[in-house]
Amino acid sequence: MPVLLLLDLVGTFAFALNGALTAVRVARVDLVGVVTLGMVTAVGGGIMRDVLLGAVPPAAFADWRYLTVAAAGGLLAFLFGRGLNRFSRSIDVLDAAGLALFAVTGAGKALASGMGPVQAIILGAVTGVGGGTLRDVLVRRLPSVLSSGLYAIPALAGAALVVAADAADVRRLLEVPVAMWAAAVCFTIRVAGLHFGLDAPKPPGVPRD
Amino acid sequence: MPVLLLLDLVGTFAFALNGALTAVRVARVDLVGVVTLGMVTAVGGGIMRDVLLGAVPPAAFADWRYLTVAAAGGLLAFLFGRGLNRFSRSIDVLDAAGLALFAVTGAGKALASGMGPVQAIILGAVTGVGGGTLRDVLVRRLPSVLSSGLYAIPALAGAALVVAADAADVRRLLEVPVAMWAAAVCFTIRVAGLHFGLDAPKPPGVPRD
Amino acid sequence: MPVLLLLDLVGTFAFALNGALTAVRVARVDLVGVVTLGMVTAVGGGIMRDVLLGAVPPAAFADWRYLTVAAAGGLLAFLFGRGLNRFSRSIDVLDAAGLALFAVTGAGKALASGMGPVQAIILGAVTGVGGGTLRDVLVRRLPSVLSSGLYAIPALAGAALVVAADAADVRRLLEVPVAMWAAAVCFTIRVAGLHFGLDAPKPPGVPRD
Repeated sequence: MPVLLLLDLVGTFAFALNGALTAVRVARVDLVGVVTLGMVTAVGGGIMRDVLLGAVPPAAFADWRYLTVAAAGGLLAFLFGRGLNRFSRSIDVLDAAGLALFAVTGAGKALASGMGPVQAIILGAVTGVGGGTLRDVLVRRLPSVLSSGLYAIPALAGAALVVAADAADVRRLLEVPVAMWAAAVCFTIRVAGLHFGLDAPKPPGVPRD
Repeated sequence: MPVLLLLDLVGTFAFALNGALTAVRVARVDLVGVVTLGMVTAVGGGIMRDVLLGAVPPAAFADWRYLTVAAAGGLLAFLFGRGLNRFSRSIDVLDAAGLALFAVTGAGKALASGMGPVQAIILGAVTGVGGGTLRDVLVRRLPSVLSSGLYAIPALAGAALVVAADAADVRRLLEVPVAMWAAAVCFTIRVAGLHFGLDAPKPPGVPRD
Repeated sequence: MPVLLLLDLVGTFAFALNGALTAVRVARVDLVGVVTLGMVTAVGGGIMRDVLLGAVPPAAFADWRYLTVAAAGGLLAFLFGRGLNRFSRSIDVLDAAGLALFAVTGAGKALASGMGPVQAIILGAVTGVGGGTLRDVLVRRLPSVLSSGLYAIPALAGAALVVAADAADVRRLLEVPVAMWAAAVCFTIRVAGLHFGLDAPKPPGVPRD
């Protein structure tokens, strides 16, 4: 199996697991709900990107492994939800790795489809944050990407680095592919944000929580 | 008019009527809201399937009769909402027939577009449950497919039978087309679930309602 | 720059500004949230129309200026939200102009893609109201288009005039292009509805607020 597909499936699994665990915590859902919400979190962002690129059927439907791995992550969360909550820190880190991977590959795929830099940065971020946003809407939670923490900002940063490197025609830096640097930047900002409880600025004049 | 189109329009009408009646019950919507929510319930699932298959424009927009029949169902619910609530049991049965029809034709259409078995089963279920889920999101209700009753499970069962029969190259059983058996299984599970108040399993450790 | 593109960008900007200001008022969102909700309001309806027409990538992603102008409108609302609320009446009027423009150009684009009259009217209305509906769903508000005011009705009227003129092969009336008459009708109904506090009819038997 090619390395990129393997990484993509690992990211899909992490998103499904994290998405389904969040769903169990915040809403009274049944087996169908937990698995569905895990799958939506995992493949929703990539589907949005592919529909916006006109690359249909989306990658998640072109290869059965995406849906299967996503369903497995959701099922695992259903069966072991309580026990897995003890590992929530490790799962958050895995989720940050998924975010980094999805934002970077999303921006790369948009550029490869002929999109301009502005669109590629936004589509990279959409790939990273779209699935979790869809899940939050389904369980009637204000999407966390709109309200707290650093989630879109690391995704935008990672996607912007991919776009900048493409414009400057830089493919490697110190022998390491640029995509890995971009993913590392996204991952680092996301994990630092989690660790230090950082938030994006609030509108001026609005009272703080 | 071909039988399949006629059946499809009957299913569309049943979904629009049931969807709009639900909307009137749970939210303070006006004429535009009732008709829109009926139409979204009726054509939303098929549109999701077609977008995911890359079959655009979706069938609901390729033939004006779908939107017209859906709008008529919504308008009827607006005008006679109170009176129609007395027939809610018959409308539930009509809705179960619509679910069976949509799940079976949705899986068949996915297979005909070259989708694999996993994807075809999921797209059959999406065709059946997508519209009602969209309506629930619009009226800010936790989608019932995620939380209670048997709704996705009969749709998955019907779609899986279509896929299994296709894999085994069986087209008829006791002279009856396989699609009708699959629809009958979906319909029976759905109606039994309604009648006996069956639910999908809840996550272990979560207190029951 | 062609006049139509310029008008389209002005409508996009008005929608982004109004959408983001509404978001700040009704939900506790951060910088990312305000800008995202402004952009979603501005380009959401056109993206829905283009996906339903099969015209992908959508116009909003084919030209970087749409996303940039939408982001600028959102950013302005973030920075000057409090001050801008004083101009809410002027912004409402600008928003009505955006609605008229989007409904009319949306119906025209649907006809040009070979859609029938029923579909073109609905796609015109979707272009006008889709973005605001998506924003309302994201901030967990019952979409105003479903519940109060006249928003979909002027959009449907403007779109229907475009379709009727196309069917009658009328391009100009008193030397003025028909599209401008249609936009003026939509705009007038919308502004009159705002001014006089008009609502669409409620379902019979439902108590009034």
